[in-house]
Amino acid sequence: MAKVHIIMGSQSDWPTMQLATKPLDDLGVAYECSVVSAHRTPQRLVEFAENAETNGVEVIIAGAGGAAHLPGMTAAMTWIPVVGVPVKSASLNGLDSLLSIVQMPKGVAVATQAIGTSGAFNAGLMAAQILAGSDKELRERIKTWRAKQTESVPTNVE
Amino acid sequence: MAKVHIIMGSQSDWPTMQLATKPLDDLGVAYECSVVSAHRTPQRLVEFAENAETNGVEVIIAGAGGAAHLPGMTAAMTWIPVVGVPVKSASLNGLDSLLSIVQMPKGVAVATQAIGTSGAFNAGLMAAQILAGSDKELRERIKTWRAKQTESVPTNVE
Amino acid sequence: MAKVHIIMGSQSDWPTMQLATKPLDDLGVAYECSVVSAHRTPQRLVEFAENAETNGVEVIIAGAGGAAHLPGMTAAMTWIPVVGVPVKSASLNGLDSLLSIVQMPKGVAVATQAIGTSGAFNAGLMAAQILAGSDKELRERIKTWRAKQTESVPTNVE
Amino acid sequence: MAKVHIIMGSQSDWPTMQLATKPLDDLGVAYECSVVSAHRTPQRLVEFAENAETNGVEVIIAGAGGAAHLPGMTAAMTWIPVVGVPVKSASLNGLDSLLSIVQMPKGVAVATQAIGTSGAFNAGLMAAQILAGSDKELRERIKTWRAKQTESVPTNVE
Amino acid sequence: MAKVHIIMGSQSDWPTMQLATKPLDDLGVAYECSVVSAHRTPQRLVEFAENAETNGVEVIIAGAGGAAHLPGMTAAMTWIPVVGVPVKSASLNGLDSLLSIVQMPKGVAVATQAIGTSGAFNAGLMAAQILAGSDKELRERIKTWRAKQTESVPTNVE
Amino acid sequence: MAKVHIIMGSQSDWPTMQLATKPLDDLGVAYECSVVSAHRTPQRLVEFAENAETNGVEVIIAGAGGAAHLPGMTAAMTWIPVVGVPVKSASLNGLDSLLSIVQMPKGVAVATQAIGTSGAFNAGLMAAQILAGSDKELRERIKTWRAKQTESVPTNVE
Amino acid sequence: MAKVHIIMGSQSDWPTMQLATKPLDDLGVAYECSVVSAHRTPQRLVEFAENAETNGVEVIIAGAGGAAHLPGMTAAMTWIPVVGVPVKSASLNGLDSLLSIVQMPKGVAVATQAIGTSGAFNAGLMAAQILAGSDKELRERIKTWRAKQTESVPTNVE
Amino acid sequence: MAKVHIIMGSQSDWPTMQLATKPLDDLGVAYECSVVSAHRTPQRLVEFAENAETNGVEVIIAGAGGAAHLPGMTAAMTWIPVVGVPVKSASLNGLDSLLSIVQMPKGVAVATQAIGTSGAFNAGLMAAQILAGSDKELRERIKTWRAKQTESVPTNVE
Repeated sequence: MAKVHIIMGSQSDWPTMQLATKPLDDLGVAYECSVVSAHRTPQRLVEFAENAETNGVEVIIAGAGGAAHLPGMTAAMTWIPVVGVPVKSASLNGLDSLLSIVQMPKGVAVATQAIGTSGAFNAGLMAAQILAGSDKELRERIKTWRAKQTESVPTNVE
Repeated sequence: MAKVHIIMGSQSDWPTMQLATKPLDDLGVAYECSVVSAHRTPQRLVEFAENAETNGVEVIIAGAGGAAHLPGMTAAMTWIPVVGVPVKSASLNGLDSLLSIVQMPKGVAVATQAIGTSGAFNAGLMAAQILAGSDKELRERIKTWRAKQTESVPTNVE
Repeated sequence: MAKVHIIMGSQSDWPTMQLATKPLDDLGVAYECSVVSAHRTPQRLVEFAENAETNGVEVIIAGAGGAAHLPGMTAAMTWIPVVGVPVKSASLNGLDSLLSIVQMPKGVAVATQAIGTSGAFNAGLMAAQILAGSDKELRERIKTWRAKQTESVPTNVE
Repeated sequence: MAKVHIIMGSQSDWPTMQLATKPLDDLGVAYECSVVSAHRTPQRLVEFAENAETNGVEVIIAGAGGAAHLPGMTAAMTWIPVVGVPVKSASLNGLDSLLSIVQMPKGVAVATQAIGTSGAFNAGLMAAQILAGSDKELRERIKTWRAKQTESVPTNVE
Repeated sequence: MAKVHIIMGSQSDWPTMQLATKPLDDLGVAYECSVVSAHRTPQRLVEFAENAETNGVEVIIAGAGGAAHLPGMTAAMTWIPVVGVPVKSASLNGLDSLLSIVQMPKGVAVATQAIGTSGAFNAGLMAAQILAGSDKELRERIKTWRAKQTESVPTNVE
Repeated sequence: MAKVHIIMGSQSDWPTMQLATKPLDDLGVAYECSVVSAHRTPQRLVEFAENAETNGVEVIIAGAGGAAHLPGMTAAMTWIPVVGVPVKSASLNGLDSLLSIVQMPKGVAVATQAIGTSGAFNAGLMAAQILAGSDKELRERIKTWRAKQTESVPTNVE
Repeated sequence: MAKVHIIMGSQSDWPTMQLATKPLDDLGVAYECSVVSAHRTPQRLVEFAENAETNGVEVIIAGAGGAAHLPGMTAAMTWIPVVGVPVKSASLNGLDSLLSIVQMPKGVAVATQAIGTSGAFNAGLMAAQILAGSDKELRERIKTWRAKQTESVPTNVE
Repeated sequence: MAKVHIIMGSQSDWPTMQLATKPLDDLGVAYECSVVSAHRTPQRLVEFAENAETNGVEVIIAGAGGAAHLPGMTAAMTWIPVVGVPVKSASLNGLDSLLSIVQMPKGVAVATQAIGTSGAFNAGLMAAQILAGSDKELRERIKTWRAKQTESVPTNVE
């Protein structure tokens, strides 16, 4: 059963959230993806969050845009770490998404990433880093991945 | 049973949300007040929203600050109109609260008011205006109240 | 006579405001649409607002962009609930429209929605929710519509 | 009869708007001050704007805060130049006031000044500059005033 | 000799500033246009401002983008009213231009208009309104123009 | 050896960062605290980050204000999860701190929390949640803590 | 003759700009201070900038708030490097000052520092760094100063 | 050996940073360009900064976007003046880049330029101005370049 579950508020968030799967694929971390809308399917959200632990989920990645309530509401209903991704919104470029996700009140935390595709990519990476705490092999794979990333940056401007 | 229910994310929102009771008192509209935290008491929120209609609630006023999910999540779980009040936050002066409440996605609406005490006051007024649609006497009281408000504005600067 | 009247500051707001008619059509709520510019046709605005009740209007939806004075000025001249839609503006992406509409002073309220097409759509929905307070059949249609919306959200990402 | 009329949305704007009287006093320009609320006294606004020319007003200074509709709505109802002053607001420091006043649509103009007391002071100055177009003596007084202002700036830091 | 002089910081501001000529043409007000860069041609700016009165200029329209110093620096060197137009900038959509123009300190005023083409158009209009103070015929032409503008707004949405 | 290390850019961040110790104390998680300035002590930062794993650190909490480079630079030099806290800054209320921390490029992730004391508190909580992935007893303590938090929210407004 | 000249738009900027003298004093760099207002004393600005080189000035530090035109206008009139300091403003916390100073068009550069006292302090430091290019002893003093600064950061939180 | 070294966080910053080479080419100042990522190649950054002086670098131009840590971290590790360029970012148009670069704490300064290509161009110019302090011929070339720039601004709008 996949330890990472990627949820998003709408099918239209997928082009952004898809980036989260890249580092997970690279690092050999299994994941599942679902659409769970805090606003249009609140019951589905409750069920997802309440059953996450039983279902073997160890890290949740949640992406949403605008009044982005999905990451915070998921975090409110489970102790499992939630990594939040502010999806770029139509009018305010994701500043609304960012503030809706990151400005959580004392007592319920979300591990917020950057707006848009960089944030989605890094959400996958952060999920792997969290899992690596109890998985030595994954830790080594992350170190190798990071080393490769460093090497892949050319010094010369072309 | 009170037709208006005022909920807020925290006891600390009360100094702001209290303003909502002023026009309701003036206009003779009964109301109840409760603390319902979307993040710290998500189950209480579900129960409140799902039972609101049965409990005779006809308008909900919801105030919250920061990543203010309470108004939108309540609106997600009931057809009853939700009037949202962005409470002024510690670091971003309520801009985060405003965007978290107003930038709702297509399909679930919140009737958002101004940041802080003006917004809370107007939330009470808007609740009364909504109820007045089917209550001729309330409508007359609102008209009288508005006329008095107009008269109370002095022309001369002192 | 239509219970909902949709007004907008300019013909150019129509591509946005048109979205408000979608949920009203779905829910069988009659509406009318007019261009009323607070700045270019102030007299028309005064006449519209002062005659709205006599003309049987029960909810007003008002959309405008930039220094968006239409919703607030309409609300200043009638007790009928005004639902405001901040239309996306050319330079500031609708942040100016949003603040001009939502930051109303104590005493005159506007039920502000999100910037742009989502907000316009939700304005139609909110108008229906307000009317449903005294219309049991509409209430049932809203509940059915909401249930369908929930069902229409696929779980799988494609 | 005073050629400059200073209006403001509320008595609470007076501590800011009072600054507008300073340069007018210095330059010997007569003025009157009134409270005219776009939202709470819309009829008073209509009467004020429609009668301004007949009453001999040649420049209007209008200050308001938050969803500051007073300057723009006044400008919509008279051809007389309106100088707008964004009063500092409680939650957003006057950014809402500024955008509500300055972002006017094509066809109705407001001569917007800075947020707060500097803007109010400069509104008085701008009113005098506008009147000086047809008043040679005032023009000379303005030049003298400006020269004195320049002289009054000490070079040394103390 | 033209009573209105339109200056702009760069040739690239012309597509925006051109809008200012529309109402001036409509209202029969003569104008001249020049490029005067506060930063690249500071001497030209000094000469322009110091000679403006002698050259018969009665209103200056100044447009600039980014760190838009042209309107304020011109106003610093002449008592003639300066109408400022914040040109939309490449990165911050003109918010930088707006704040650089409008936030003038006590003692030197600029009559700031909206960001971009609406602001440029209204700058032309405001210039005409200022001149109309001492020109009865222009005043009548403005009133007629305004009336036509009002009539040109169709009520029906198409 | 403490599994959580709290670092901050300056002694002056301590009143904020101190909040991070509250949930760690509550949950029985050991931690250490140090001042490490990315700008004034870059070498100390390199040493801290490179030795963190060897020193048994499993989660790093990093707080900084303004151009807050500490969390991101630490994350650049270790695979260990870094939880970032934007400390409220003097002029921009922490918006600069937030953007400097959260807007990380693809390839290096920071688990960003809210601005100020709420964010610091939640950073402690998130650190515990991350450690709980491989610590069943801690997981139970978190669940109990969360349950107590829920119970501690009174329903009645006082 | 002093190689560094600190200018500011107003006596009221002195409490901020005074910080610039600290590192200059520490590093033994001579400086002079004057009030030069771009708006109220434009001629003084022209004279200052045009004579700076002849007067032996090698770096100019310029601080101003709001529509802060002083640094950019000085830079427009001399090739000598200008270090700009955005002074915190009354209404917008210095965001207006920052954008007015930093968003210079292609062709005239300002070396902008942070808003407020940190920026003023760093302006003094940057001036010294610029002078150190041709002054080996100053360079050594800067290195020693930096080393001391590093040492002065305690590791332990108190 | 080149006295100016241009570094940037990513190859993708080159289209922006390339502008910095234009005035350097015009003014006959030699430069080198490298990609140095603060986040992906932190060790390369340390080596670059620590060896810069030995390598004969006298001014560093550093460009980066988003959480732009490169200019500030470089400045933290060398006394050589660092000119910072905020590269326009995908979601927040470079406002995040600007704040991350300019809001440096007391003790480490960056000479920040405008967002995007104008800032990159001016960074080249500022580097030349700094070098000109000890290079009379360069100083003359800058003066000539500035004079040509002034002449190249046409007065007539076309």
